[in-house]
Amino acid sequence: MLVKAASQSLAEQLAERFAERIRSRLLAPGTRLPSVRQCAQQQGVSPSTVVAAYDRLLAQGLVEAHRNRGFYIRNQLVDHIYIGYSATNTIVSEQVSTRLESPAAMPHVPVDAAALIRGMFHDRGGQLQPGMGAFPSEWLETNFMSAAVRRFCSGAELKALSLHYGEPAGDLALRQALASRLSALGIAATPQQLITTVGATHALDIVSRSFLRAGDFVMVEEPGWAVEFARLAALGMRVLPVPRGPDGPDLAVMARYCELHRPKLFISVSVFHNPTGYCLSAGHAHRLLQLANTHDFYVVEDDTYSHIAPDHATRVCALDGLQRSIYVSGFAKILAPGWRVGYLAAPVAWVERLLDTKLLGTLTTPALFEKALAWCITQGQLRRHALQLRARLDQARGRSVALALKAGCRFATPPAGLFGWVDTGVDTELLSQRMLDKGYLLAPGALFHANHAPSTLMRINFCTTQDAAFWQVFAQVRDAM
Amino acid sequence: MLVKAASQSLAEQLAERFAERIRSRLLAPGTRLPSVRQCAQQQGVSPSTVVAAYDRLLAQGLVEAHRNRGFYIRNQLVDHIYIGYSATNTIVSEQVSTRLESPAAMPHVPVDAAALIRGMFHDRGGQLQPGMGAFPSEWLETNFMSAAVRRFCSGAELKALSLHYGEPAGDLALRQALASRLSALGIAATPQQLITTVGATHALDIVSRSFLRAGDFVMVEEPGWAVEFARLAALGMRVLPVPRGPDGPDLAVMARYCELHRPKLFISVSVFHNPTGYCLSAGHAHRLLQLANTHDFYVVEDDTYSHIAPDHATRVCALDGLQRSIYVSGFAKILAPGWRVGYLAAPVAWVERLLDTKLLGTLTTPALFEKALAWCITQGQLRRHALQLRARLDQARGRSVALALKAGCRFATPPAGLFGWVDTGVDTELLSQRMLDKGYLLAPGALFHANHAPSTLMRINFCTTQDAAFWQVFAQVRDAM
Repeated sequence: MLVKAASQSLAEQLAERFAERIRSRLLAPGTRLPSVRQCAQQQGVSPSTVVAAYDRLLAQGLVEAHRNRGFYIRNQLVDHIYIGYSATNTIVSEQVSTRLESPAAMPHVPVDAAALIRGMFHDRGGQLQPGMGAFPSEWLETNFMSAAVRRFCSGAELKALSLHYGEPAGDLALRQALASRLSALGIAATPQQLITTVGATHALDIVSRSFLRAGDFVMVEEPGWAVEFARLAALGMRVLPVPRGPDGPDLAVMARYCELHRPKLFISVSVFHNPTGYCLSAGHAHRLLQLANTHDFYVVEDDTYSHIAPDHATRVCALDGLQRSIYVSGFAKILAPGWRVGYLAAPVAWVERLLDTKLLGTLTTPALFEKALAWCITQGQLRRHALQLRARLDQARGRSVALALKAGCRFATPPAGLFGWVDTGVDTELLSQRMLDKGYLLAPGALFHANHAPSTLMRINFCTTQDAAFWQVFAQVRDAM
Repeated sequence: MLVKAASQSLAEQLAERFAERIRSRLLAPGTRLPSVRQCAQQQGVSPSTVVAAYDRLLAQGLVEAHRNRGFYIRNQLVDHIYIGYSATNTIVSEQVSTRLESPAAMPHVPVDAAALIRGMFHDRGGQLQPGMGAFPSEWLETNFMSAAVRRFCSGAELKALSLHYGEPAGDLALRQALASRLSALGIAATPQQLITTVGATHALDIVSRSFLRAGDFVMVEEPGWAVEFARLAALGMRVLPVPRGPDGPDLAVMARYCELHRPKLFISVSVFHNPTGYCLSAGHAHRLLQLANTHDFYVVEDDTYSHIAPDHATRVCALDGLQRSIYVSGFAKILAPGWRVGYLAAPVAWVERLLDTKLLGTLTTPALFEKALAWCITQGQLRRHALQLRARLDQARGRSVALALKAGCRFATPPAGLFGWVDTGVDTELLSQRMLDKGYLLAPGALFHANHAPSTLMRINFCTTQDAAFWQVFAQVRDAM
């Protein structure tokens, strides 16, 4: 709400609100601002206030006026080299039957995945956001975490791990602990097949850079995690979106892609898929691996939600024995995002290549948190913590689902895991902008599609949508659309 | 030396020695093993022992026999996707006049930069190696380092920085401290222009990924740091090597490159250039920036050796005011390689784009060591430590130079900084292999050239070449060649 104040005029406040969203990419370059009349109505101010606010934005170079078509947000970046995220280099999976054959670059749609990533950094001290991609930080609090770090902060220990670069593949104690953990998931991997990384994101980055060159085709599930599409596009890779169903990816679409484009990699979240919550079935995993063998591609299994799933959930890497699959996971979702520890497990023949990519990009990773994490795993602390977190999540999910249904939403997929995939009945891109005015960050469905197609779906975080107040505001805003 | 032992036959020992070098890439794929007679002579064993050893390597799949041409080391990696490092995508600067016009990919030369990187990780507990790229770890010992870390390990502090991802651009306290440090170097940068990274290597990776796409041309100094060539080649970028002279890069060559290939970036070490030790002159820096303006390319200034150089040394970024230059540095060389903290400072218009690349590749970086480092800087501890280290390095350099000259070496450039660029009079690639038999890792000149041309030069680390015993072995091995 804009409030009259001595220090700032209403126009200044309104301009500052837009400016902040433009700078933080919650309003993407190319987006049209609401018309003066619309905006005045939405904000409860006079049209002249809106005109004054838009003039300020114009003067600041944040927007540009297109004659008779209104105001548009300018691209702040250096245009001639800027590599656009999003829709470049992708095919639209909804229209797979007609579009499969022509993987030409799509017209640039300037919706920005970075906005959602940056949203991840907004919870500090502030309101919990329905669009968040992680557990609220207070859910991650444990007694053992600090103790684990301090174990390695004695003079001699700390000196040893500070004054050397550390092991190229990562701390051996952690890799041993991870090999045991993977064994519990049915995945046989030696510590020599494991490489630690700066979070799971870094592991995925290393894998794509090692397996693919710019221009190569890569299959990615759709809907899927926006950052994955954005990173692959930024690396110049050509994304082939594969529809994700309840049992797994659409194998018929994949087979056709393989015949036409010979993709080298398929990137997939088997368990508690983001955003649908789907889990891969064993039969589907088997047929996926058959397809991979037939067409000679590798499967990257992103098991980010590993710790909130049962050990017996189907993993491709367990069936495959890490022959043509690469396992990726991390600990940001379960213990300490600030430690930035992730890892990958790969076929023996690929380990050296992946390690080179890690070394060329960052050299080693800091050993302190890797050692602390190894201790948390081997002491059983992490496992107990994960079980508690799952129980708490189950309760939260129940409450959140009830509230969402009561607010008139429909679940597009059965609620499971951390996220709900919710049909709101209205365009969620526009809804998101309106909800921002009320202080809520949503995750609109467009962000989960390679081409950012408009969508009535949105992803909710079950932990951060248990408050009836949010759903009331949500219903009001939606009903006013 | 091979010694008769009960546990292993001589053939087993010899095979194991070769196997270990092949696995650690000190012998590159494609390299021919010495003939049986040569090897027997070098190792002081019978030809039948060598035959038995080579048979073992053959059985392990590490080498392959080419009829009548001997044994060659096999490529352990998956051939059909493996992206070779090194000579692909480069032009030979020695032959600039004739080759400038034809930047076609060179034939693949399988010498491996990873060997030298991995050599960096070999000092733990072992012998100090003349080829090392860093200070010996005991030179980095300080009293304040552990204290700095423990300041942020109290329950509340540690919780705050563990349970959140941290600031996208990196810890604000560190960015403020770095802005002051840069100001002392004459470089005006606000904390908003600074981004922290996983070491300087990561900063260089982020910059190249943000400014360049695969296929783009990039100018890099030659001789230069092997990892830089390797990373750019792995990203599919086309390296244009620029000869480095005493005052700076060869501007005439750069001008010609600009006309022919319109490169977008020039990557340079201004101060204590690796491996020559050259420092950029002010006049040269000025003309370099004029060229950059004329031809619209950016200068990446890698100031890795910043802390062992005087503050008044000429930096491109100081002249330029971060308009078309990007500053990169880190703390692995001066304080704590295991902390993995580096940073970059960039033109305002580029900060968002660089930050996106960081987020897409690793999300954030761990805040603990960033906070500890900020404390070391603001307390003046780091500065005092750097002054002491420089005094000690000056003494070491004097001893090392005297020994090298006595051993019959010639310095190709005036000794300065951490490294000496030494002419041995013999092929240093072969010399390196012979010296490995004696337990010494050298850095042969070929590794500092984009095309790995044979060279009689090698880079020595002044800190690790003060031992007369090394130079005696060196002289013996060289004289026997």
